[in-house]
Amino acid sequence: MVEYSIGVDLGGTNLRAAAITKDGEVLDKISGTTNLHEGRDAVLDDIVANIVRLRERFGTEGFAGAGIGVPGFILMQEGIIVGSNNLPELEGAPVRDEIEKRLGAQVILENDANAAALGEKWMGAGRDVNDLVLLTLGTGLGGGIIVDGRVLHGYVGMAGEIGHITVATNGNPCGCGNYGCLEKHASATAVEGMAYMMGLGEGLTAKDIYDLAEQGNKNAQTVYARMGAALGIALATLINIFNFPLYLLSGGVLPAWEYFSPSMFEEVNTRSFTFRHTKTRIEKAILGNEAGLYGAAYLPFQQAPPIA
Amino acid sequence: MVEYSIGVDLGGTNLRAAAITKDGEVLDKISGTTNLHEGRDAVLDDIVANIVRLRERFGTEGFAGAGIGVPGFILMQEGIIVGSNNLPELEGAPVRDEIEKRLGAQVILENDANAAALGEKWMGAGRDVNDLVLLTLGTGLGGGIIVDGRVLHGYVGMAGEIGHITVATNGNPCGCGNYGCLEKHASATAVEGMAYMMGLGEGLTAKDIYDLAEQGNKNAQTVYARMGAALGIALATLINIFNFPLYLLSGGVLPAWEYFSPSMFEEVNTRSFTFRHTKTRIEKAILGNEAGLYGAAYLPFQQAPPIA
Repeated sequence: MVEYSIGVDLGGTNLRAAAITKDGEVLDKISGTTNLHEGRDAVLDDIVANIVRLRERFGTEGFAGAGIGVPGFILMQEGIIVGSNNLPELEGAPVRDEIEKRLGAQVILENDANAAALGEKWMGAGRDVNDLVLLTLGTGLGGGIIVDGRVLHGYVGMAGEIGHITVATNGNPCGCGNYGCLEKHASATAVEGMAYMMGLGEGLTAKDIYDLAEQGNKNAQTVYARMGAALGIALATLINIFNFPLYLLSGGVLPAWEYFSPSMFEEVNTRSFTFRHTKTRIEKAILGNEAGLYGAAYLPFQQAPPIA
Repeated sequence: MVEYSIGVDLGGTNLRAAAITKDGEVLDKISGTTNLHEGRDAVLDDIVANIVRLRERFGTEGFAGAGIGVPGFILMQEGIIVGSNNLPELEGAPVRDEIEKRLGAQVILENDANAAALGEKWMGAGRDVNDLVLLTLGTGLGGGIIVDGRVLHGYVGMAGEIGHITVATNGNPCGCGNYGCLEKHASATAVEGMAYMMGLGEGLTAKDIYDLAEQGNKNAQTVYARMGAALGIALATLINIFNFPLYLLSGGVLPAWEYFSPSMFEEVNTRSFTFRHTKTRIEKAILGNEAGLYGAAYLPFQQAPPIA
C-alpha cells in the first residue's frame, strides 16, 4: 500500500491537483480551470471531482486526506475562507466541512503562500531546515513562515503578511491603509509602476523590464536595484526578528535575481548584524508553481494520525 | 514536597535570585551586586552561592533546576554567552556547564529579554495566551518572542532583536550598522536624544522628560508622540508578520504611556489591517523587573522531565 495524499492548488483561474506519496513522490497531477462564474457549488464540485479522480486511481486505503491551498485568509479552526480577492464566491462558507463531507476524508485548507512555504520546506530549497520564511514576489507579495516545520498561522490565521512590512515610512500608499509596504516597492506590480515612472513606457511587464535590463537599459536596471533595496530592508527586519537559517524568494520577479540581488544583499548586510555574524542564507526557492501543491499535499501527513 | 526552581537575573550591576514554585508562587527572593571587577570566577561563585543558599532553604528533593537570565546572546546548545556588552567577562566560557557542575543540577541560560517575555507569559500579562511579543523600552530596546508558550530563539539564539527593526529608512544611525532602528527612535536613550535636539536641555532622563510633559511642556509631549509613532510602525510590522493576540510593552519608558500611546495606536491602526480587523491587544506588561526572574525560573519546568 502506498501512503499518499492529494494537494490542491485553487487559484482564481486554475485548479490543479496532485497525488503525492508520503516520501514526496508525485504519482500524478491534473489541472483545469476554476469555474468561478458558475458559482460556489460548481467550484466545490470541481475540487471534489479532481480529488476523487486521483483517489480512484490510487485507492482509498493509503489516502491520508487532501490539503487545499487557497488565496485568502483562512479561519483554521472553522475551515472557512475570509478575505479572498480572487475567490470572493467562496468567502464565509464552510468550505472545508463541505468538501470533507463529500469526500468522506480529512481536508485541510491553507493559505496558498503558506502552502508554498511548507512545500519548499518539505521537498524544496528548505529541505534541510525546520525554520524558514518564503517571500513570493508576484503581482502581490505574499509570504509564509515555517516554525519548527509547521506553518505559523497567528491567532486568526493572518500571520505571514510579509508584503505589508513597512520599508519606507512615507512610501507608496497601499490598499491595506499603510504607506511604504514592501509589496508596493518589491512586487512585479511595484517594478512595473517604477518603470512607468522612470519613463520606460506604459504597459510593460516585469519580464519586459527584465529584458530591457538584459539589453543594458540603465533605467530598467535601476528599477530592479531599487526593488532589491526595498527587499533588503524587509529581509533585514525579518532576519533581526527571526534569526532563521533560511529566507527563500520565489515568484515571477525571480528571474531578475542578478539585477535586484546585489542591492538586496547590500541592504541586508548593512542593516542586519545577525546576517553579518551568522551563516544566514537568502536563496531562490526551487519548486516554482509546484511548491503550493507539495505544501498542500504535506498538510494531511502533518495532521493525520499515523496510518496503521 | 514543594516542586520549585530558582530563577536568576544576572545584570551588569545586580544579581538577583528567587525560588519559585511550579505554580508561580515566590518562596523567597535574594539580591546582591554583580562583582564583575573580581573576574569571571567570582561572578560564577556568586551565582552558585545564591542558588545554593535558596536551595538549602527549600531542599533538593523538589528542586527542578535553575534558569539564569543574562544580557547577551546565548548559544543555547553550548550554554555559552557570546556578545554581552554588560558582561564581557563571561563571554565565550562554558558558563552553563560550569554552574551545572558546581550545583549538580540542571541549569539553563536565557537572554534576559527572552526570559522577561516568558515570565510575562507564565505569570504576567500574557497568562491567557500562548503567543506574544514583549518589547522592553529601556536604555536600549529589547524584545522576546513567545511562540506556542516557548521562547523563539532562532538558529543561533539571536531571534527577537525587535530593537533593530527599521522604522525610518534613513533614520538615526545605530551601532549595529543600520539606520533608523526602532531602538534609536523609541528607547529611553532615543527619547533623551530627541529632547536634547528639541532644546529641552542637556542630561535629562526619560523620567525628567515625562515630568516636563506632565507639566504641559509641548516639546516634551512632542518627543513622546514621535517616540510612540516609531513604536507604532514597528508594532504594525510585528502584527502583520505574527498575527499574535498580544504585544506587551515594559521598561523605564512605560510610565509615559499616556503621552506615547495615542500616536502609537494611530500608526498601528493606519499601518496594520490585521490590527484593524482583529482583537489584537497592545498592553502594558505587569511584572516589571520581576518578569525576568519569573521567566528564568520557568525554564527548568519547561525543559525538565516531570518530577516523579
